[in-house]
Amino acid sequence: MSDLPKHIHINEEGPREGFQIEPGPIPTARKIELSQRLAWTGLGHVQVASFVNPKAVPGMADADDVIDGLDPVPGVEFTALWLNQRGFERALTHADRLTLNGSLNLYASDAFLKRNQNRTPDQQRAAQPELIEMYRAAGVPVKRGFITAAFGCNFEGDIPVDRVVCLVGELLDIAEAGGESIDHMGLGDTMAWATPSSIKRVVGAIREAHPHLRLLLHLHDTRGLGIANAYAGLEMGVDMFDTAVAGLGGCPFAEHKGAAGNVCTEDLVFMCNEMGIETGVDLDALIDCAKLAEDIVGHPLPGAVAQGGALERYREALGHVRCV
Amino acid sequence: MSDLPKHIHINEEGPREGFQIEPGPIPTARKIELSQRLAWTGLGHVQVASFVNPKAVPGMADADDVIDGLDPVPGVEFTALWLNQRGFERALTHADRLTLNGSLNLYASDAFLKRNQNRTPDQQRAAQPELIEMYRAAGVPVKRGFITAAFGCNFEGDIPVDRVVCLVGELLDIAEAGGESIDHMGLGDTMAWATPSSIKRVVGAIREAHPHLRLLLHLHDTRGLGIANAYAGLEMGVDMFDTAVAGLGGCPFAEHKGAAGNVCTEDLVFMCNEMGIETGVDLDALIDCAKLAEDIVGHPLPGAVAQGGALERYREALGHVRCV
Repeated sequence: MSDLPKHIHINEEGPREGFQIEPGPIPTARKIELSQRLAWTGLGHVQVASFVNPKAVPGMADADDVIDGLDPVPGVEFTALWLNQRGFERALTHADRLTLNGSLNLYASDAFLKRNQNRTPDQQRAAQPELIEMYRAAGVPVKRGFITAAFGCNFEGDIPVDRVVCLVGELLDIAEAGGESIDHMGLGDTMAWATPSSIKRVVGAIREAHPHLRLLLHLHDTRGLGIANAYAGLEMGVDMFDTAVAGLGGCPFAEHKGAAGNVCTEDLVFMCNEMGIETGVDLDALIDCAKLAEDIVGHPLPGAVAQGGALERYREALGHVRCV
Repeated sequence: MSDLPKHIHINEEGPREGFQIEPGPIPTARKIELSQRLAWTGLGHVQVASFVNPKAVPGMADADDVIDGLDPVPGVEFTALWLNQRGFERALTHADRLTLNGSLNLYASDAFLKRNQNRTPDQQRAAQPELIEMYRAAGVPVKRGFITAAFGCNFEGDIPVDRVVCLVGELLDIAEAGGESIDHMGLGDTMAWATPSSIKRVVGAIREAHPHLRLLLHLHDTRGLGIANAYAGLEMGVDMFDTAVAGLGGCPFAEHKGAAGNVCTEDLVFMCNEMGIETGVDLDALIDCAKLAEDIVGHPLPGAVAQGGALERYREALGHVRCV
């Protein structure tokens, strides 16, 4: 247990992941309401929209209006996702409200890369220096590297650990060659193939090769292992997680039924609270956001602790203090 | 990862836990159908009913008929629960179909003991030798010890680790004084207060005091940590789990909303399969049982992998073999 981090950083991606996949239509004002309230919970980072083709993702057609409707919150980064230059240019028009960070990305699954981006691995590699150029021209720092499908793929099966380690090294080299220094490397369990054991194997192997690289886990809960995988990450000292309030969302391109969203933010915050790991988040306020998210989408969402209730209220009623 | 067990034993408690709490009425034939099909999945142990007051638990009024309707399956133990002599005597009339094992039980929460059994700790202790007498008179071995609310309690708060270790020692002594030797000691997270860290703390402390005692975890998933807690148990070498297919059930006496059932059997089996831990269970057949359970209760149940789908079908389609 000694490797558990003292505090973690959570990237809340619920609004983007969730409103991207919900059939909707969801009123713009309600999207703004959820993102704004999330920003008041103590989360440091809320991803509020993606700038993608509105024909492909109708739920994001109002991305500009969502961002225009947000009030800045000190210490909170509102961010957005884009997949190409056109999307990035739209994001740039919101530089007053959005924190813009560049991201580089390789895929551990060639088959998924083909389906998702219609690119070969060589094309994806070649696209990265072009991204660096694009970010540099706009004065936007490259902060994140990301390996998609790092733990397995519905279209390619299990992914060898060595391949992921190799891709991490390649992406670091690409960044360095472009004069950029990545702040953290994300490992995406895009199609929910990870187990606690594979989390430990992959994170351990990357640590071995790059001891000082900060790692982030982007976990999906499709097969019920999301929180267990997050715990395995915590045990390995991982201190950054992409999560979604109430478990909103899912990957619309993974093409399997029952695709669940990211690991649930409040369930992770609850587990961390109870284990003495600081998140900076007000759990009760976050649970209220989860209930709001359910109200907005109009159906139950998978988060558990919003249903089961946190434990502090019992301790308060008993006049106790948590012992961890 | 080296302490992960090579294989685990699962006590399927879904039919008993589930049909006890569902408002119903559920036809007896459907209860039989689920238990019978669970017994064909490779599970070694299926708890099919409880002999309790039908006025208190109407869903168990047909316990005798359920058991009479079961066909024996070689290598599978059908078991039942009872809470007093009257219930045990009913179970004895089914000695041809049921595997009867005695169980001793102390509570880590005095407040929950009072609410659940209306007893003081001294009364609960004094009741155990009487239980041993009752079992001996009937020729039934005492196999299980159980500590209820071992990780926390809605009515008493956090439970000190020392208290649990002490209770385990007391229960072993009571058994020994009665000429019985307990096969395994169950730790109940009755109201879902456990975290992976507290699982490790409590299991570790009991191991320290009783290195050769086999431990079982009875986990509830009310706050979303069930599978993560099971993983922490596996990491500590725990190789026995009470689980419920599809996450059926819940404790009707814990009196909090959103009480979720035991940790979901097929989610645990999936995780173990993927980590190379043998369960002896056919996961696809078990997922079919989870879907059957949903059909029987008439509403969605919390299990994830029955929705998200297991991974072997992807590997088979790709002609791959799982690498763990």
